[in-house]
Amino acid sequence: MFETAELGRAVSKKDFEEQERVLRTELLQAQRDLIAAKIPVVVIVSGVEGAGKGSLVNRLSSWLDTRAMEVHVFWDSTDEERERPRWWRFWRTLPPRGRIGVLFGSWYTHPIVERAFERMDAGEFEHAMHRIKDFERTLTLDGALFVKFWAHLSKEAQHDRWVADEASGRKWEVSPLAEEYGSRYDAFLRTSEQAIRLTDTGTSPWYLVEAANPRYRDLTVGRTLLAAIRARLKPTVSPAPPTAPGVVDPGPTTTVLDRVDLGCSLTKNDYKDRLDHWQRELNRLSWAAYRERRSTVAVFEGWDAAGKGGAIRRVIAAVDARLARVITIAAPSDEERAQHYLWRFWRQIPRDGRLTIYDRSWYGRVLVERLEGFARQDEWMRAYNEINTFEEQLVEHGTIVAKFWVHISPEEQLRRFEERQKIPWKMHKITEEDWRNRDKWDDYAVAVNDMVQHTSTTAAPWVLVPGNDKRYARVKILETLCRSLATALDEDLALPE
Amino acid sequence: MFETAELGRAVSKKDFEEQERVLRTELLQAQRDLIAAKIPVVVIVSGVEGAGKGSLVNRLSSWLDTRAMEVHVFWDSTDEERERPRWWRFWRTLPPRGRIGVLFGSWYTHPIVERAFERMDAGEFEHAMHRIKDFERTLTLDGALFVKFWAHLSKEAQHDRWVADEASGRKWEVSPLAEEYGSRYDAFLRTSEQAIRLTDTGTSPWYLVEAANPRYRDLTVGRTLLAAIRARLKPTVSPAPPTAPGVVDPGPTTTVLDRVDLGCSLTKNDYKDRLDHWQRELNRLSWAAYRERRSTVAVFEGWDAAGKGGAIRRVIAAVDARLARVITIAAPSDEERAQHYLWRFWRQIPRDGRLTIYDRSWYGRVLVERLEGFARQDEWMRAYNEINTFEEQLVEHGTIVAKFWVHISPEEQLRRFEERQKIPWKMHKITEEDWRNRDKWDDYAVAVNDMVQHTSTTAAPWVLVPGNDKRYARVKILETLCRSLATALDEDLALPE
Repeated sequence: MFETAELGRAVSKKDFEEQERVLRTELLQAQRDLIAAKIPVVVIVSGVEGAGKGSLVNRLSSWLDTRAMEVHVFWDSTDEERERPRWWRFWRTLPPRGRIGVLFGSWYTHPIVERAFERMDAGEFEHAMHRIKDFERTLTLDGALFVKFWAHLSKEAQHDRWVADEASGRKWEVSPLAEEYGSRYDAFLRTSEQAIRLTDTGTSPWYLVEAANPRYRDLTVGRTLLAAIRARLKPTVSPAPPTAPGVVDPGPTTTVLDRVDLGCSLTKNDYKDRLDHWQRELNRLSWAAYRERRSTVAVFEGWDAAGKGGAIRRVIAAVDARLARVITIAAPSDEERAQHYLWRFWRQIPRDGRLTIYDRSWYGRVLVERLEGFARQDEWMRAYNEINTFEEQLVEHGTIVAKFWVHISPEEQLRRFEERQKIPWKMHKITEEDWRNRDKWDDYAVAVNDMVQHTSTTAAPWVLVPGNDKRYARVKILETLCRSLATALDEDLALPE
Repeated sequence: MFETAELGRAVSKKDFEEQERVLRTELLQAQRDLIAAKIPVVVIVSGVEGAGKGSLVNRLSSWLDTRAMEVHVFWDSTDEERERPRWWRFWRTLPPRGRIGVLFGSWYTHPIVERAFERMDAGEFEHAMHRIKDFERTLTLDGALFVKFWAHLSKEAQHDRWVADEASGRKWEVSPLAEEYGSRYDAFLRTSEQAIRLTDTGTSPWYLVEAANPRYRDLTVGRTLLAAIRARLKPTVSPAPPTAPGVVDPGPTTTVLDRVDLGCSLTKNDYKDRLDHWQRELNRLSWAAYRERRSTVAVFEGWDAAGKGGAIRRVIAAVDARLARVITIAAPSDEERAQHYLWRFWRQIPRDGRLTIYDRSWYGRVLVERLEGFARQDEWMRAYNEINTFEEQLVEHGTIVAKFWVHISPEEQLRRFEERQKIPWKMHKITEEDWRNRDKWDDYAVAVNDMVQHTSTTAAPWVLVPGNDKRYARVKILETLCRSLATALDEDLALPE
């Protein structure tokens, strides 16, 4: 999840100033429209310690018309607050219709902190998250717009920030809690991921913001807020209840795919050795999984011509035919269209002990269906949460879930398209649609980035596979599968010599 | 909650046959409309053991066109099912668009049984209910209509049913599980109440059905189903996502208010003694509550001129002025209208140790706002769940919640109205609005019945107070309050001599 906010995105001072000028004007206009439309907006600013939440809140205050906004800081609770149910303090700070409430700290803070310090158990934490989800849904049904920001810093970036602050004599700016919280970075990250996943709904989504560069952070938050307000104001077909707050105009941006190192490759000999090794391992482990009655679901997504098919064949070749199955997902049948989109995937859940490979999958909802308009915005936005719940149930049952995005560069894709057109027995593989999809490369990259942000979880992570070199990709996939199985089954893993 | 399904309602054979003829025709027409509108309907038949769920399902099969419906019985799970995540069996039985799926047993069965037998802890059970809520919401957002029936029998009626079956030589009709489950009636009831409360949402509401009389049971289920389908088919202002399935046309029916014994009364002397006794007790207990930092919320609702004001004065007179406060709820202010309707109640939550009396309350949402059309149907239908969550949070914080509906007969109300009009200093108490409300007596009675059904919980039960005799009502209220406080504080309670 957080990998999408560790991409090193930054904005120069000059660019910032230029863009800020435009953004401020637009935000003020949006704020006037909100007042006229009587829509209350709740902006939540959360994130890791040291991500600059305070500066961000100050920046928002300087951009917005403060006569129609208010900032609430949730700090230690007062006597007044402790003598009432926990949610009293939150209810009383809700913005009335037409106003923006910016919450620095929120109903998320207490459970995340308590859980990270292990003063709250898993069940209590989940209960707290359910209550939050209900609370936010209650208000969105009543017309409120929620825009929730999570400012993220990698462990290294967090450390660098503090060192820099100290060096520049601004140590006083570092909260006394920073050190205590910082020492628990990993626990916080795990807990935060869970909190975000459980409360990331179509009508109240989380926006992960890369916070290492303050200018990029603030600009992204400002733009996201603007886009969410605009989407909410746009008259929709169904005026009430409100639809999803809407996607952010991505602009020219870096996605998680840009961090995939496409230079990886393998020599022919290395490839042969490793392929052989990991195939043998996979065969052994798939039998072990069968004995332990653990099934495996492997999802393959990727660009057209990225080499999914070839990789899948290498996996299948390694596993006994009784244990493995490939399900190719094409357009849904009439029968399938007459049901919820997840129904067709539920019906094909493998039995215990089997390996099932999905050549394309339920992620079509947030990729092709999103981009081709087959799913409405509110539909694909809530799909992230629905998919997470679906995979959570697989994992709870003991299923091992592996998800691969096979990535290639646009240049490599073009090369392969042209090559295919020249070879008679490959010509059929390339269609008009492939060329059309290619034109939407940037949109797809954004959709993939969003998908990874919302659905890459500890229990079912996305693996972005560098695919320009097919040999490297195949070995990488086999190896990843073996590692997942070995970990889940608590089996030893033999490494290639 | 279940008191609304223990009213002794019955239908004669002749009435049943007449009404069945009409109902069948209408159900078949509704089913045809469903097919055209491509709406999938999920009917859940649950309830206590012995309530005749099987016969009810058979009746529905005989009424509906079986070519567009299917019945699924969830019995012991198969190998196929056990080897997949728990929800697989449910997903694969979902009806496609345009069809009705009747589920005999459902996703509720397993958690309720496990919890009643204490094989599942409170946290796991709540987790299961949250998952159910998510699942049903996922499908309703996709266009499905949920109609959930809970067939209820009192402990006595359950017992009588078995005795009768045995006597008539139909013991074979009694499930072998009956005895085992019957012996745990109370545990099942508690668990069921919790399950219903946690999953009774505006878009997927529960319908409690009194099952002691099979004809009444089947007719009520048939009518409710018909009304829910019709409400769903009716083109609404906002076509998608779907609104609440709609209320049932109550018809001439018995409500929970008809079971209040209005003959209760007290002599003047008894009244004096008891009033004095319970006021002294309340004073003592309110100080004890203050010391223990437990606050009390007492809600007063009732017919116009039922005597709420007089009763409230007797309560207040008993408690130190520093500890008690009366909040009179009138029409919301501008500031309050600019927020979610619960906001104004949240802001007035008492501090620990205090007693707060609400002269009318948040229940206005499901009474006057419902009947005057100030709240849309989807709004007041989801309010039950919102109110339950609100009170649950009060109770979790340690607040003692008491809710009184002061009941009088329409004749007694008329007498009081006329009396007031004759007395100069009481004339102002009676307005045009009171007369208008009076005309809607039957509608209000249904709304009160629905309110009690959806919001009378173990932790925050409704007390229906017979109010024709003001003296009896006042003493009853004081006594009830004392008992609630004594139980919560674990204090002894002195009884009057």
